[in-house]
Amino acid sequence: MAKLKIIVSATSMFSKRIQWALKLKGLEYELSIEDWEKGKSELLLKSNPVHKLVPVLLDDGVVVAESKVILEYIDEKWKGGDFYPLLPQDPYERAQARFWAQFADDKCVSGTIEACLAEDAPEKEKAVETAIESFTYLEKQIEGKKFFAGDKIGYLDLVAGWISHWLSVVEETGGIKIFDAERFPSLHKWAQNFIEIPQIKECLPPRDVLVNHYIRRLSYVRSLKPKKP
Amino acid sequence: MAKLKIIVSATSMFSKRIQWALKLKGLEYELSIEDWEKGKSELLLKSNPVHKLVPVLLDDGVVVAESKVILEYIDEKWKGGDFYPLLPQDPYERAQARFWAQFADDKCVSGTIEACLAEDAPEKEKAVETAIESFTYLEKQIEGKKFFAGDKIGYLDLVAGWISHWLSVVEETGGIKIFDAERFPSLHKWAQNFIEIPQIKECLPPRDVLVNHYIRRLSYVRSLKPKKP
Repeated sequence: MAKLKIIVSATSMFSKRIQWALKLKGLEYELSIEDWEKGKSELLLKSNPVHKLVPVLLDDGVVVAESKVILEYIDEKWKGGDFYPLLPQDPYERAQARFWAQFADDKCVSGTIEACLAEDAPEKEKAVETAIESFTYLEKQIEGKKFFAGDKIGYLDLVAGWISHWLSVVEETGGIKIFDAERFPSLHKWAQNFIEIPQIKECLPPRDVLVNHYIRRLSYVRSLKPKKP
Repeated sequence: MAKLKIIVSATSMFSKRIQWALKLKGLEYELSIEDWEKGKSELLLKSNPVHKLVPVLLDDGVVVAESKVILEYIDEKWKGGDFYPLLPQDPYERAQARFWAQFADDKCVSGTIEACLAEDAPEKEKAVETAIESFTYLEKQIEGKKFFAGDKIGYLDLVAGWISHWLSVVEETGGIKIFDAERFPSLHKWAQNFIEIPQIKECLPPRDVLVNHYIRRLSYVRSLKPKKP
């Protein structure tokens, strides 16, 4: 079998989900790392012409894009036997995992970014409040459990995994505070447990690399926003 | 087995996907129809407290929300034997169906709504152009095929199904034109084929009901938008 390849960026929280999933499955892969300074690679533009975004999985002649779609693909292609399952078996539990994964991306990731990008104080305050409301839903989902999937991590843990390592960086560089340990005790506990899992820990980007990336990224995105009169 | 119930609205394109799926599976269900004039029902607010949106599927004590999540649930719970398959079997084909379903919702549905809501002419023209670009991707996906899933309809056909009946209403009420037959010959052919399938045709909302709904809906949403100085 040809080796799997994933097109990633060194700092992308969405890319990391795929790396984690392949590690959990025990599959070997090689990384094709995008360098944003040089612009998007030919390989990325050819492989994901629709969105032109990482991550992309190249598997034996086929190309799969969009991180949650790739996770499902990996779980469906390498299943049974000794392969680590990402999604539960039961249709209802699978639906719950998908519902909350979509929620985590649509509300928690987007809400956090919106709060970072807000420039005037009342707008920022409101965006932070909205993000906190969204995280409160996730807090309720994890209460009384070690991981979203139960005793072991699964699909939803991987999707929410950025909270354990990226969120504090995004907060710091964006000048906001959402993920307070007192407000979110169960999510905090979960994040600590999640990040201690060897397959997760061994491929985290160094914090200073993330900080530098988000400082430049936020400044770039802000420069694109139309200025208020 | 307790009868399935779906909470829907009479005009919702997202609700209809679930009704279509249950008809294709040969499952009996009852409808709980929301009446927007009266506000959201207690049942809806209790069943989908996170988004408070239709459709919601109530199945034997469990509740599933979000239309694409419900479609996967239905396909996973009632599978094999005589049950009509919604998603293909092959992991790569499944990934493709999911990728394009997400694209159709994120880009085509949202793009069309954005074009309707745009008020000044240059903004509207740009939004229409962007929507046309998105539909062009779908056109390429359906070229040379009867349905997205092949000879028979499947998951992606249901997700894109609104194009066959809702889109012209949205265009008419929103004062835009996106879905030109010359520009999108294959999608037009697909839409005609799709709408002739008995399980699809037999539960379409009457066009005048949709027109009235969208006139009121657009007027309401526009009234919420901050006025330009």
